[in-house]
Amino acid sequence: MEKTWATSSAAGLDLHLDRAGTRVRADLERALREAVGTGRLAAGSRLPSSRALAADLGIARNTVAEAYAQLVAEGWLTARQGSGTRVRERPSGGGQAPGGRASSAGAGLPARAGAAPAADRAPQVDSRFDLRAGVPDLAAFPRPQWLAAARKATAAAPHRLLGYGDPRGCAELRDALAGYLARSRDVRTSPEQVIVCAGFTHALTALTQILIGDGSTAVAVEGYGHAEHRAVIERAGLTAEPLPLDERGARVDALTGSPARGVLLTPAHQFPTGVPLAADRRSAVVRWAAETGATVIEDDYDGEFRYDRQPLGALQALGPDTVVYAGTASKSLAPGLRLGWLAVPNRLLERLLAVPALADQRVDVLHQLTLAEFLTSGRYDRQVRSRRIAYRRRRDVLVAMLHREAPAVTVSGISAGLHALVRLPPGVDERTVVQAAGRVGVAVDGLATFAAGATGVAGGAGSSGAAGRAGDLGAALVVGYARPSDHAFTAAIARLCAVLRRALGSG
Amino acid sequence: MEKTWATSSAAGLDLHLDRAGTRVRADLERALREAVGTGRLAAGSRLPSSRALAADLGIARNTVAEAYAQLVAEGWLTARQGSGTRVRERPSGGGQAPGGRASSAGAGLPARAGAAPAADRAPQVDSRFDLRAGVPDLAAFPRPQWLAAARKATAAAPHRLLGYGDPRGCAELRDALAGYLARSRDVRTSPEQVIVCAGFTHALTALTQILIGDGSTAVAVEGYGHAEHRAVIERAGLTAEPLPLDERGARVDALTGSPARGVLLTPAHQFPTGVPLAADRRSAVVRWAAETGATVIEDDYDGEFRYDRQPLGALQALGPDTVVYAGTASKSLAPGLRLGWLAVPNRLLERLLAVPALADQRVDVLHQLTLAEFLTSGRYDRQVRSRRIAYRRRRDVLVAMLHREAPAVTVSGISAGLHALVRLPPGVDERTVVQAAGRVGVAVDGLATFAAGATGVAGGAGSSGAAGRAGDLGAALVVGYARPSDHAFTAAIARLCAVLRRALGSG
Repeated sequence: MEKTWATSSAAGLDLHLDRAGTRVRADLERALREAVGTGRLAAGSRLPSSRALAADLGIARNTVAEAYAQLVAEGWLTARQGSGTRVRERPSGGGQAPGGRASSAGAGLPARAGAAPAADRAPQVDSRFDLRAGVPDLAAFPRPQWLAAARKATAAAPHRLLGYGDPRGCAELRDALAGYLARSRDVRTSPEQVIVCAGFTHALTALTQILIGDGSTAVAVEGYGHAEHRAVIERAGLTAEPLPLDERGARVDALTGSPARGVLLTPAHQFPTGVPLAADRRSAVVRWAAETGATVIEDDYDGEFRYDRQPLGALQALGPDTVVYAGTASKSLAPGLRLGWLAVPNRLLERLLAVPALADQRVDVLHQLTLAEFLTSGRYDRQVRSRRIAYRRRRDVLVAMLHREAPAVTVSGISAGLHALVRLPPGVDERTVVQAAGRVGVAVDGLATFAAGATGVAGGAGSSGAAGRAGDLGAALVVGYARPSDHAFTAAIARLCAVLRRALGSG
Repeated sequence: MEKTWATSSAAGLDLHLDRAGTRVRADLERALREAVGTGRLAAGSRLPSSRALAADLGIARNTVAEAYAQLVAEGWLTARQGSGTRVRERPSGGGQAPGGRASSAGAGLPARAGAAPAADRAPQVDSRFDLRAGVPDLAAFPRPQWLAAARKATAAAPHRLLGYGDPRGCAELRDALAGYLARSRDVRTSPEQVIVCAGFTHALTALTQILIGDGSTAVAVEGYGHAEHRAVIERAGLTAEPLPLDERGARVDALTGSPARGVLLTPAHQFPTGVPLAADRRSAVVRWAAETGATVIEDDYDGEFRYDRQPLGALQALGPDTVVYAGTASKSLAPGLRLGWLAVPNRLLERLLAVPALADQRVDVLHQLTLAEFLTSGRYDRQVRSRRIAYRRRRDVLVAMLHREAPAVTVSGISAGLHALVRLPPGVDERTVVQAAGRVGVAVDGLATFAAGATGVAGGAGSSGAAGRAGDLGAALVVGYARPSDHAFTAAIARLCAVLRRALGSG
């Protein structure tokens, strides 16, 4: 269809309209908004009469009158008896033309902002050789099975579940999770105490508010751990107090006399050092919490992945009244699902649900029902089992290749999880190795990156001072062996081994 | 298969094991944990030797030894050379047997907590006659189309999107939303400024932190509105300062001299009074924000639903640097999806993404991609159009039936949205009508329920003092006509009309 463009430059108004379009009035309104928003029509200036503009554009007068009325209602124009239609006087602040950045108003298309402040925070790395810890093999996410569960859940969900729901999550999922957690992690809980959340960070954000309410000014954290978790704690105005780490996990004896009324632990498999919390310390930290009224946050991020023996049961079972258990689908399925869960002591339940972050449910109910279906059908357990086999094999390959290619390094920590701590021999600088790996496309983090007090998050390196406070564990790499896809995995490890061989040869 | 039960009561240990089961060791561990957790095995007491227990149970000694080792590692038992295996001494606090409430440990099945503190907060109502505002017809959620979009999105998503993503949401959805918002609501934004969130409450929780950072101690709110929104503001430690309302919307002139550095408005269709914010006030509030460095939060909860004319464009277009625009799928699709979005001024973007509530993405990426597919395929627009027709028809039915059955009431507010304000004639008590409706199964809220300062949320009634502060609008019902399903709708309105007829006859 041929377009018929109409142009009016009455009163400096330079309008381009497609008269053959079906939305003449909408187009006129858009053009007028743009002219006002960009300042082409100055504040206070008078618009042509609707009769004049209509004649000029060759459209119905009524269309112009309606467009003017619409823009008056929206606050762009004013219409006063006797003084005609004028551009409304603009807010004085700012100096910028109100009504939109000039670049954003064209043709109804949103402009790209000049700067993209938050985009692509993570450095670009070659995903085939990405050995940073914390992310599973995303290619192994069982899409067809997940979709089948979603189909079943979406078809079966009663209408009422599509409304605003229980802040803890829907009963179907809380039932399934309570059963799963009892069965697989020996968690002592009930569906009433389970809260569905959008990943561990969401939960931790809420839990900081409970600790503040308990009068805590600090949260004890493991000397090495996720910088993001410490950042959540610090954004809440709390101090993240590092506990020293040794080969038996966090030195919980350091809690005695601490102002912290909370401690964040990874008892099954310390992240990133890979050791479980020793039995006497498990018992001691629960005792400390019971005696001081404190709360233990158990981040059971990969508790389902143990290869050498049966996993340790959750710490929570030793103290269901003091330990908040936190689990996640981020490692077993995928982080992008944003699915996590808490098992909460009864004494904290009401308070936690009054915290803004958990006061309303944040997770799509169809998503919740899909996970519930995955759990009750046994599909979740099968996924965990199959990933366990795959990651165990990868860990064996890593250990074997390191043993052959770089025998001076040692893999410490238990045979579990999705990452390994690879200790470098004395005299080898961890940062040098990380940088050498980067030069051949391999992304891997040094242990210092995770030290409390370290500033760098990805690829950075902590100060020796920070490492000292966290318990000096020497130089090491934290190798996430789950992340590359199957076809890239061996090549990624081979590259890492080649880097280590060179570094140790010259070290 | 016949079960072979083994029982041992050595050392007070009363164990029941299914020897024919494939998980003898796991069962033994569970039974031991339960015995310790419930206190049946007292702290400090000595367990039978692995040899004795194995003989007693008729299982392999090694199985018992392994189970003991596991429970030692988990912190339930201690093993010391020479003193055998004992139950670990328990934390002293509490007085309750640690390791679990007695009722929660049985047979690995989670017990129901005695009290369900947060369950079923909303009163039970007959969903057929539920005329409370805020929820659309959940039966109209387009399940097959949504599922088809989910299938397409799940199949097409690159693996990398299943990892941890951009805190603002995935680019695919932000692109689609920026285009949709420009097209349908005249929002001036770019994909870089769009943040995907889990509904409006999630966004508001984050925005309160920005206002606190700006030194605000108060947020101005409309004199009548959602109690939940005021609760979010107050939980953050801010005062919700009501602006009086009249037939032209919120009296934004009352902001002059206010300590509030933020104001929460529903400019397109005030909730619940149903009037749009007058043109001069739209302009004035943007001017106030620009002059004082304040932020306007535009809750555009139902801006797509206008029946009598073209919707007012978003207030945001008048002040893209001062207005945070908030939209939602809760009315157009379903609240249970927990999908919302913000268009954020550039000056606030970095700060907002540093607030814990928005510092990481909380919405499932498959869910985001499904909405993106819905938007770009035109399916979302079709859904809005079809719902617009349906709700307009319902509003017409409501108005016609009220006119016939209860001519003394007046429906005020514009022809828009999912609810209507039904004003009662002088002398009729709103609470009496609400209660009478409740007696015939009709759930409806009185206007006073929404007054700032009112304590009741659902079905309650505010004090006249609170209503006075909010601008006294007289007695009225807020009738949500979207909620009942199609087949129940007319019957629900007929019941309401019958209640009104009786109330007005005796009023």
